[in-house]
Amino acid sequence: MPSHADAPQAAPPTVRPRADATTAERFARSAAALEPAAPVAAAPDVPAWLGRRRRAHDFRVERIPLADLEDWTFAPTTGNLGHHSGKFFTVEGLDVTAVDDGGHHHWQQPIIRQPEVGILGILVKEFDGVLHFLMQAKMEPGNPNLVQLSPTVQATRSNYTRAHRGAAVKYIEYFTRPGRGRVLADVLQSEHGSWFFRKSNRNMIVEAAGDVPLLEDFRWLTLGQLAALLHQDNVVNMDARTVLSCIPLPDTDGRAHLSDTDLLSWFTEERARHTVSATRIPLANVSGWKRGPYAVEHEDGRYFKAVGVSVRAGNREVTGWTQPLFEPVEPGVVAFLTRTFDGVPHVLAHARVEGGFLDAVELGPTVQYTPANYTHLPARRWPPFLQHVLTAPPEAVRYEAVHSEEGGRFLNAESRYLLVEADESVAPLTPPPGYQWVTPGQLTSLVRHGHYVNVQARTLLACLGAMRTAR
Amino acid sequence: MPSHADAPQAAPPTVRPRADATTAERFARSAAALEPAAPVAAAPDVPAWLGRRRRAHDFRVERIPLADLEDWTFAPTTGNLGHHSGKFFTVEGLDVTAVDDGGHHHWQQPIIRQPEVGILGILVKEFDGVLHFLMQAKMEPGNPNLVQLSPTVQATRSNYTRAHRGAAVKYIEYFTRPGRGRVLADVLQSEHGSWFFRKSNRNMIVEAAGDVPLLEDFRWLTLGQLAALLHQDNVVNMDARTVLSCIPLPDTDGRAHLSDTDLLSWFTEERARHTVSATRIPLANVSGWKRGPYAVEHEDGRYFKAVGVSVRAGNREVTGWTQPLFEPVEPGVVAFLTRTFDGVPHVLAHARVEGGFLDAVELGPTVQYTPANYTHLPARRWPPFLQHVLTAPPEAVRYEAVHSEEGGRFLNAESRYLLVEADESVAPLTPPPGYQWVTPGQLTSLVRHGHYVNVQARTLLACLGAMRTAR
Repeated sequence: MPSHADAPQAAPPTVRPRADATTAERFARSAAALEPAAPVAAAPDVPAWLGRRRRAHDFRVERIPLADLEDWTFAPTTGNLGHHSGKFFTVEGLDVTAVDDGGHHHWQQPIIRQPEVGILGILVKEFDGVLHFLMQAKMEPGNPNLVQLSPTVQATRSNYTRAHRGAAVKYIEYFTRPGRGRVLADVLQSEHGSWFFRKSNRNMIVEAAGDVPLLEDFRWLTLGQLAALLHQDNVVNMDARTVLSCIPLPDTDGRAHLSDTDLLSWFTEERARHTVSATRIPLANVSGWKRGPYAVEHEDGRYFKAVGVSVRAGNREVTGWTQPLFEPVEPGVVAFLTRTFDGVPHVLAHARVEGGFLDAVELGPTVQYTPANYTHLPARRWPPFLQHVLTAPPEAVRYEAVHSEEGGRFLNAESRYLLVEADESVAPLTPPPGYQWVTPGQLTSLVRHGHYVNVQARTLLACLGAMRTAR
Repeated sequence: MPSHADAPQAAPPTVRPRADATTAERFARSAAALEPAAPVAAAPDVPAWLGRRRRAHDFRVERIPLADLEDWTFAPTTGNLGHHSGKFFTVEGLDVTAVDDGGHHHWQQPIIRQPEVGILGILVKEFDGVLHFLMQAKMEPGNPNLVQLSPTVQATRSNYTRAHRGAAVKYIEYFTRPGRGRVLADVLQSEHGSWFFRKSNRNMIVEAAGDVPLLEDFRWLTLGQLAALLHQDNVVNMDARTVLSCIPLPDTDGRAHLSDTDLLSWFTEERARHTVSATRIPLANVSGWKRGPYAVEHEDGRYFKAVGVSVRAGNREVTGWTQPLFEPVEPGVVAFLTRTFDGVPHVLAHARVEGGFLDAVELGPTVQYTPANYTHLPARRWPPFLQHVLTAPPEAVRYEAVHSEEGGRFLNAESRYLLVEADESVAPLTPPPGYQWVTPGQLTSLVRHGHYVNVQARTLLACLGAMRTAR
């Protein structure tokens, strides 16, 4: 079947339908395909393949004292940690005041500042009529197992415009040059608002025009295969998960507890009733945090640390480097409570304030916490729904896997991701303020736009999307 | 015909259709109604009625020296201008660095900071099966003719939560209390990014449940009547225009030059290629601006001034007040170039950077400039398309009216708003970088969400919307 790029060059039409109904169906077909098409090289056992790539490169990551970071220094006056080139990112301080109907919250914390917008892009291509996703076995120093399945491209703008030295980014031309492919999704999405200051990346899915060379460390996989891999721990990296959440899957039902207008109105009220003022301050001035030889950390040992690592690859020309990473002190738990109303599955979204969000509030999972911060307290003082998630009986757990966050910035940042079935006694149809029932189809509509769905909820949306289309 | 609120109280359904197809059609029906329905009090000649209200209240606005502003002072260290209560707004400084592929731009300017989100709300109600809009004759001191047609409600959060003294906001309960009405549109929209620091207001349209008392200074008008009034100078105020732009009118065609996916991708690239850093600085430190007895103004007399006014009403218990306003030095010109491709009307949108935008870039009109800043230069150095708009032959002008911006903050901030038909020689199908052809239907989809369409483009969208449905 020739792709559109192989067709004779007729004058393009000046107008076309605004919506392409076939795209959603094509993704659904890929989700139903549990094996790659015949023209694609036999798919390896992906986790085993990732392990082989890790051993082949002989990657080694070691913790080092902050003073041993090469070309990274704490600025004398501000104490901000940055690279001498001014590139990459800085670790600075943030002062946050959040006001809502319930009161006034104020805190200070270290935060990563990286104003550049990067590209997280997956190249797709039809083989035998089924879309396949070009995925990469990529090492990131913060990943617990170093090598995970990544998007085709994961690059900062300096990276791919070659503003600083470094090898060319493979396949980048499909995402930057018109005519090399057809865009199926392209949206700026926020990253972790508790660790990044207003960071967003461009999440892209591009369908290749013409043949695509298959390079080492890359494989074509169907969405059905990716869905299966999302059930395994630490296989699909965060960047891949967020891009997968942007797939425009069909909403076969078209019904929901709230109409789209009512959902947007609820969200508007949530955003309007929170006034968040977040101001960058010098890292040296962040109260309650201290700088030691190995870490910038909280005085009570809570939340996270900024640490240093050195990265080496044993077997080839890759130059090693050192860099800071944020390391959470304890693992997290991230969960949507789910219910089915009149045959339509819903998840319970939480309008969350995170200090680093550009626009104050985004929709997060029902539960997104570090349990260790609460388990010493009586359960009545835990955040809403956390106890139910931690004590859910196995038969209520519809999905569970451990995933880690972006390994280029976060060290061993693992969370247990869950979908937990609830009932009226736990999670009523009329939920508490700040929570609302939404369908996966509604979340899929919202992620066409930025500023709506946070990165943890997008990981769960990727899992939901694969599950609901594969049924 | 009973409204839904009059129906017997059955248990509400747990799910409903995500989209309500009838809402768009109901607004279209109102646009086609050029007279109010019989049950509504005879519509006055609106401009004459506005004039009568102005004379009845005997409003008087006078310029005063900045030193005569009561309870407003310049802070000793920063020079910021603020109210002693800490309420209302402040005039501060802004330092902006904008970087794109074309280079590096840096400037400083005064800016209005008002972190609170207000409500701009229009109450609608069906009479004889036609939606009518409850509009207010409202005085704002900066309006050239003082009294214009405003939304039902125009209130800051402090206003309507009664955080500070002041009369209750009329009809506010329809916008803040569930059950008093049904939300038809509700979205946070940006205001002027060149004059406000990250200001947004909630734009709401609510359909009233049950009878609505008609208070003095309010009238029910059809969308068709409002469309006619939008063709008159200085009748429909900015707040009303932006709310009217959020009406979910039907897209009867469903085709466009770019698919929605391609349009969002183009916009994402525009936002990604601009890095804008906007930092608040003390007003006293803004370079190139000076403070005199009557104004904070640019040293070369360009752009705008911050001035003081006193406001008095002669005939009743309204207490007078004084306040600062921003006054543009020269009138503006705001225009969309329009073309029809294959029978589908399009406008040429411009991805604009304004220093006060929360997210760097929004879609603006093709032209949004103060001509006086350029007319001393040779035409080749004018901004793109400005010359064509200023010299367009009368037969190419499809719409023209003078409108003023928010009269509570801006004094005599008039612009000539135009829709100007263009052709391939002036505005090619493949426009210059930063410009793109979009349909009014696509803009209507985008204004369901914030951060996409700037306030000047929304005024033109309101005009377009009324024109296209009334055809």
